[in-house]
Amino acid sequence: MPAMENGLTYKNAGVDIDAQDQALARIKELARATFTPGVLSEIGSFGGLFTLQPENPEAPVLVASADGVGTKLKVAQMAGKHHTVGEDLVNHCVNDILVQGARPLFFLDYLATGKLQPHVVVELVSGMARACQVHGCALLGGETAEMPGFYGPGEYDLAGFIVGLAFRDRLLDRNRVAAGDSLVALPSSGLHTNGYSLARKVFFETLKLTVDSYVPELACTVGEELLRVHRSYFAAVWPLVEAGLVKSAAHITGGGIPDNLPRALPPHLGAEIDLKSFDEPAVFRLIRQAGKVPEEDMRRTFNLGVGMILVVGEQHVGQVLSRLVLHGPGWIIGRVVEGAGVRFVGERVG
Amino acid sequence: MPAMENGLTYKNAGVDIDAQDQALARIKELARATFTPGVLSEIGSFGGLFTLQPENPEAPVLVASADGVGTKLKVAQMAGKHHTVGEDLVNHCVNDILVQGARPLFFLDYLATGKLQPHVVVELVSGMARACQVHGCALLGGETAEMPGFYGPGEYDLAGFIVGLAFRDRLLDRNRVAAGDSLVALPSSGLHTNGYSLARKVFFETLKLTVDSYVPELACTVGEELLRVHRSYFAAVWPLVEAGLVKSAAHITGGGIPDNLPRALPPHLGAEIDLKSFDEPAVFRLIRQAGKVPEEDMRRTFNLGVGMILVVGEQHVGQVLSRLVLHGPGWIIGRVVEGAGVRFVGERVG
Repeated sequence: MPAMENGLTYKNAGVDIDAQDQALARIKELARATFTPGVLSEIGSFGGLFTLQPENPEAPVLVASADGVGTKLKVAQMAGKHHTVGEDLVNHCVNDILVQGARPLFFLDYLATGKLQPHVVVELVSGMARACQVHGCALLGGETAEMPGFYGPGEYDLAGFIVGLAFRDRLLDRNRVAAGDSLVALPSSGLHTNGYSLARKVFFETLKLTVDSYVPELACTVGEELLRVHRSYFAAVWPLVEAGLVKSAAHITGGGIPDNLPRALPPHLGAEIDLKSFDEPAVFRLIRQAGKVPEEDMRRTFNLGVGMILVVGEQHVGQVLSRLVLHGPGWIIGRVVEGAGVRFVGERVG
Repeated sequence: MPAMENGLTYKNAGVDIDAQDQALARIKELARATFTPGVLSEIGSFGGLFTLQPENPEAPVLVASADGVGTKLKVAQMAGKHHTVGEDLVNHCVNDILVQGARPLFFLDYLATGKLQPHVVVELVSGMARACQVHGCALLGGETAEMPGFYGPGEYDLAGFIVGLAFRDRLLDRNRVAAGDSLVALPSSGLHTNGYSLARKVFFETLKLTVDSYVPELACTVGEELLRVHRSYFAAVWPLVEAGLVKSAAHITGGGIPDNLPRALPPHLGAEIDLKSFDEPAVFRLIRQAGKVPEEDMRRTFNLGVGMILVVGEQHVGQVLSRLVLHGPGWIIGRVVEGAGVRFVGERVG
């Protein structure tokens, strides 16, 4: 199989990020035409911003985001373990509005399956409910659809929708970012919910493992590693947002640091990321080596151990790092520089 | 095939409404535990109600709903026609919050597919954008997920999330309904987005037709009939809501009149539905006959020509009917009676 000899890339694993980008451009145009005066966000933000009172700058802003769990669901279905993906979904959504400066108000889910298995649904919802409770977020409703002939036995898809609240003067805003600002990274808890098409190929096809296989390098089974819950950064980051210590932030999801960090920067600024500033978790090293995945694809596919990046003005870095100690902790991964794009420096050896 | 000799029911077509109900009871319990003071709705409402200021009865109320298109998507995929299901989805969501007394603010979508086909995505979004524009609703964002190995070639699932605005004193409220109130029906535009698992069995398996087959009884092709856009009742009903002429309302979706109308009535009241008050559209007669579908299943599966039912106090019926003339028009389909449940009277002949 040539794809494997050449190394697995996200494109030959079936995900074409460029085709996605093309369609997205047209979609943005169509969406923009529907915008009403209440819409405050640019398209392509992590969450959409909407105000009920466009003329009132003191009015609260609603921040909304939709997301899925991707093919991590396949791993849950292989393992017969369904509550963690419910938590994944809520936490993913919470992070997406957190990087806009919003706290969660309510969440709705969409669950589609071929034949409803009550115990599976209850497990999924219990995971969502638990994660909602942690965030003081109401699980306000949802849709459970039986679509026979559409999803195979035991298969389901799961999407989530969150609405949060922010105040205009506390919104994170990439336009406040300046060259020289520090980039503070927060560790991920594993793959989170991205890169699973490629990760599944490596673990289940290349390495021919099962969810129950114990992997010494990971010190756990494949299923345990791949089902680690997507970390919520709310507890760590919300106090910093409330205190006005963060200028903008990026949730590192599909597309990795190169695609997500620029969303937190103004178009004329870029970032320098110091690879020597952190150790990559074992799961990413294993995927890179076993799948012979080119470095460029690793970086555009996985979070590589960095789940969120905060853009912090120099005068606040010390305070941010010390307040993060209880939660993670964070570290300085790089800085904002003139000129668009993300440059990686300090190549790791080995 | 015994299922067909006995007539097709929604249960043997693969949808088990009872299993769904069991899981729903547990889900409600889990969701209720997450409720914060901002939540105003009972679970099981067409849309969830949330206020930013629980202590202020004048504060606006957010009404949110999640929905899918169900296996109508399969028909769109067979016909290679994707813009109508985008409209279906938005209109379905709009109707779900309209029956609470809300007008749409913004909408987000979740689109999941195996391999992203840009022209399909653009068609889907153009349908959603068109329907959003009609309603002054911003298409605020969404998630487009490529999930290779999860969805087959050309397959996708599509879900929508809407947030609307209502004022507490204009919320439709089933607790204001009294015995003797009139039930005003509004015609559907076809199957809307419910009953497609059964309808597809009848058209494509029992009758062995294709989407391109012309059906004289329908005066159109199967694809044209099955892809008719789910009607939005916003233009017809919103002015009545604003004028305070409607007490409560039911969007007739999965479960038909027997499952949806009670959601618009207090628990101790029921409804009498006069079947002689309207002619059933041809598509439902055809499905009943060709599929030998028992009447009970027809009623719990399809809207049978009735897409929305308004509960109207006697003194406002004349005004409501005359204002609906421009839009449909509506008719009196029955009345609210003492005792729970929906009774059908005036059996049709033939």
